[in-house]
Amino acid sequence: MSGPLPPGRRLSQEKLARAALTYLAEPADPALGALLAICDPAEVLAAIKADVLPGTGPGCGDTPASRAALERALGRWRARLPGLPDEEVIAGTCRDGIRLICPGDAEWPSALGQLGQARPYALWLRGQADLRFACSRSVSMVGSRAATGYGGHVAGEIAADLGDRGWAIVSGGAYGIDAAAHRGALAAEAVTVAVLACGVDYPYPAGHADLFAAIAAQGLVISEWPPGRHPGRMRFLVRNRVIAALGCGTVIVEAGERSGALNTARHAANLGKPLMAVPGPVTSAQSAGCHRIIREWGASCVTRAADIIELLSPLSVPDALAPGSGPELAYMPGTDPGSAPSRDDLDADSARVLDALPARGGAGTSTIAVDAGVDLDTVLRCLGRLAGYGFIERCDRGWRLRRS
Amino acid sequence: MSGPLPPGRRLSQEKLARAALTYLAEPADPALGALLAICDPAEVLAAIKADVLPGTGPGCGDTPASRAALERALGRWRARLPGLPDEEVIAGTCRDGIRLICPGDAEWPSALGQLGQARPYALWLRGQADLRFACSRSVSMVGSRAATGYGGHVAGEIAADLGDRGWAIVSGGAYGIDAAAHRGALAAEAVTVAVLACGVDYPYPAGHADLFAAIAAQGLVISEWPPGRHPGRMRFLVRNRVIAALGCGTVIVEAGERSGALNTARHAANLGKPLMAVPGPVTSAQSAGCHRIIREWGASCVTRAADIIELLSPLSVPDALAPGSGPELAYMPGTDPGSAPSRDDLDADSARVLDALPARGGAGTSTIAVDAGVDLDTVLRCLGRLAGYGFIERCDRGWRLRRS
Repeated sequence: MSGPLPPGRRLSQEKLARAALTYLAEPADPALGALLAICDPAEVLAAIKADVLPGTGPGCGDTPASRAALERALGRWRARLPGLPDEEVIAGTCRDGIRLICPGDAEWPSALGQLGQARPYALWLRGQADLRFACSRSVSMVGSRAATGYGGHVAGEIAADLGDRGWAIVSGGAYGIDAAAHRGALAAEAVTVAVLACGVDYPYPAGHADLFAAIAAQGLVISEWPPGRHPGRMRFLVRNRVIAALGCGTVIVEAGERSGALNTARHAANLGKPLMAVPGPVTSAQSAGCHRIIREWGASCVTRAADIIELLSPLSVPDALAPGSGPELAYMPGTDPGSAPSRDDLDADSARVLDALPARGGAGTSTIAVDAGVDLDTVLRCLGRLAGYGFIERCDRGWRLRRS
Repeated sequence: MSGPLPPGRRLSQEKLARAALTYLAEPADPALGALLAICDPAEVLAAIKADVLPGTGPGCGDTPASRAALERALGRWRARLPGLPDEEVIAGTCRDGIRLICPGDAEWPSALGQLGQARPYALWLRGQADLRFACSRSVSMVGSRAATGYGGHVAGEIAADLGDRGWAIVSGGAYGIDAAAHRGALAAEAVTVAVLACGVDYPYPAGHADLFAAIAAQGLVISEWPPGRHPGRMRFLVRNRVIAALGCGTVIVEAGERSGALNTARHAANLGKPLMAVPGPVTSAQSAGCHRIIREWGASCVTRAADIIELLSPLSVPDALAPGSGPELAYMPGTDPGSAPSRDDLDADSARVLDALPARGGAGTSTIAVDAGVDLDTVLRCLGRLAGYGFIERCDRGWRLRRS
């Protein structure tokens, strides 16, 4: 076990185990989800390697049926043991821009908890942006691969406009609407998150290698699958639940009647998240799915960034901007959060965090926590509030004071 | 008093009075609406001519304020007395294709009762179609005068498709979407109703003289204003409530943010009627109003005739197809009402009405009523049911057996 990343941290036994599980099991495997709800990841990994049923017995409420399912699952997972890299190699992967984040990490988005036992075992990340912070004000935007010129134009414009207003764009990195959404966010110099159905180092589609490099440079390329893993049809469908979970809401820009984007839309609806669709000409088959979910699923009809922000603003504060003791960030639809308090009006925690921010360079969240003398959760909450008020901004190396 | 029309009927004193009131008062005049709720029309007309306040006194619950309002109204109405044609002339107008229908007439659509005291005093009709029957399965379709090619195309297609499936199209006779809706219905040989904001003989817009002639030949041109009256800005807005009331639901095809079509939409919503809008490109200003009412007013997003029929079918039987003792017309969305009962399964009234129908030529509703020995309301109800079952069809001269 070696390979520190982020600098100064080592992979714990639990992280190494979770990393290994992403190699052995497909995401959202119900058997593994159930096991991880009751067992330690390292325990589960050890049991798989030892070929014993983990987490079973009189105390675990198992039944003959669940035992049989677990035995089959064990067979599946063990079949992949020969391809499991050494711990050294896994830890080594976590260098050069690839990171692993796990439940409990400061950067783990709490929204993933909405997936219950189907939450990712861990996430592989390429890029320096903070996933949790990005998802605190984020819109998932997906749509047809076979987008029309209209759809691509509209997706790009809306994504850029959302980016200009401080919202991150989550999408799937596919051709068509996904690519237009990512590119719109990039053009606005906003954070965008590509959730892949293959390893973060696996350029699929191949034509998007440059796009993924640009996304990693400015935002994040993330995946539940380990580096090197190739995509598959089922993997796209499983991946879609993560796209739906990471956005404060999901916008469908173009979707034919059988588009995979409607699968993401269904996930968003099932998670109880705001579902939106951009209409188009009724003469266009690529807009038929959007119109149907507006009519039949109750998706909101949105035509521009302001519509989306209006719908999402009350819901955009789960992590970084959670209500605290200080003045709240009053984000009015269609306006920038400009009417911020003065430095003297800040609550004590925010003032401490602001004092800990370097004027130049930038500092990571843990450094700031130590300097300010507050815990990580408080730092995250205060950073979001301070960024909303315009005191600070993100930079390559974390956070810094904003040049006004 | 002379001039019989429809053939065999004379204008009653009440009808003559209501006709005169359409000359003297603007539609939806609250003072006249309130008076007609408590007084006989002939009484009101006589009082106006005699310059006395009608319907007032200790028994009428009048107040100083309402007396003052009535006095002002009396002044308004009397100012138009010099322009009021003689009874002879009014009766003479009711010839050559122009008819007058009043509340209580068999042809008066019961849906107008939803307007309360703002219901029309009477309606002037040009054309032979039966207004009550037409409105029993009708869609009001309106939109921008400055329609795009897209909007005109979609309005025409949807109207023709609705017409093919037996639905009448109600609209306002304006350029743009209105004209496309009327023309779509005409192309499908369906009934279409143009509700004008001027006399039914007044060609406004002038470029639509031929269109109005075609509508009168196949459907109806109707108005609350007497023949010869010119249109005005306020009249269009007042007229819109009648368009909204006559359809089982209202569809907006294209509307800019300030389009008058949104006024009709507001009337439909206020009447509690289904409000629908056809989406379009979000890049088109002419669709912005449609998208807004879908998002903010809860208008349904419809893209084709089947969507509209699905929404309206449970509501399309207020008059002609009202529930009776016989088998109901089960109109399933997306299917034609084809699975009809055999002639032996008909209820007694429907069987009698069917027997009274001529195989050739055609007969009017009153002739059929006399022949069948049932009252007019029963005839109307049975005709709707029989047409729905496919036994009979409308023709120039009324109703006839359908050639199968």
